[in-house]
Amino acid sequence: MNELGGYEFEDLHPGMSATYAKTITEADIVLFAGVSGDNNAIHTNEEFAASTVFKGRIAHGMLSASVISAAIANKLPGPGTIYMSQSLRFRAPVRAGDTVRATITVKELIPEKSRVLLGTDCTVGGKVVIEGEALVALPAK
Amino acid sequence: MNELGGYEFEDLHPGMSATYAKTITEADIVLFAGVSGDNNAIHTNEEFAASTVFKGRIAHGMLSASVISAAIANKLPGPGTIYMSQSLRFRAPVRAGDTVRATITVKELIPEKSRVLLGTDCTVGGKVVIEGEALVALPAK
Repeated sequence: MNELGGYEFEDLHPGMSATYAKTITEADIVLFAGVSGDNNAIHTNEEFAASTVFKGRIAHGMLSASVISAAIANKLPGPGTIYMSQSLRFRAPVRAGDTVRATITVKELIPEKSRVLLGTDCTVGGKVVIEGEALVALPAK
Repeated sequence: MNELGGYEFEDLHPGMSATYAKTITEADIVLFAGVSGDNNAIHTNEEFAASTVFKGRIAHGMLSASVISAAIANKLPGPGTIYMSQSLRFRAPVRAGDTVRATITVKELIPEKSRVLLGTDCTVGGKVVIEGEALVALPAK
């Protein structure tokens, strides 16, 4: 463990896994619209959203994806981890009240610069909503 | 233009480009920590962050990346666009007070299901902070 409680590179091995879950609320969607500047009607206009294939407002994809950032920072590798890259494939919509569970899995350890390739999938009620991978770096000791 | 003011598939051609810029404030970082659940010390603890290679607090990578979501939703292709995937390579830190400018460029038009491949780069003061691509779908007419 590092001083913040995160894993050291030597603590990690392929297949290690951890989850972090967060309920996406209406307040989160409103606040995310503000911090991002994304006020797309599909997120903020129920009358419009109800007329689309989604049949109602959905959360911003990047808001659901932000739970991955929390899972990496809070759980695996944990505090101190630095984000290098992230890929995201949005598979299904997330709605206010849904609990997004991000599962982080160690896929590959890259000793040069203490980098780690992570699987980063998100589910709601067992259904995959985001698939992706992240490359992260652990802090220098 | 569609009913929301976004581009139709037929309006787009490779090389089209648009930008959207947003200043990332301290309030945005605090709110993003709340909506994401990511309270990593590098974003919220100035004493710790000052001791790192970053020499102070930085914004969440996914917060800066959310300006891409806004650029797509607000500018190109504009309102009604649906996110399919996004890749993000974090190149440099963003700090409170920095203005993140997301530039969206049409790279490829995929007529099947009206999909569009976009370049999605973010800069601060002309320096690239995020490189990436997005695949989006335009709403059915």
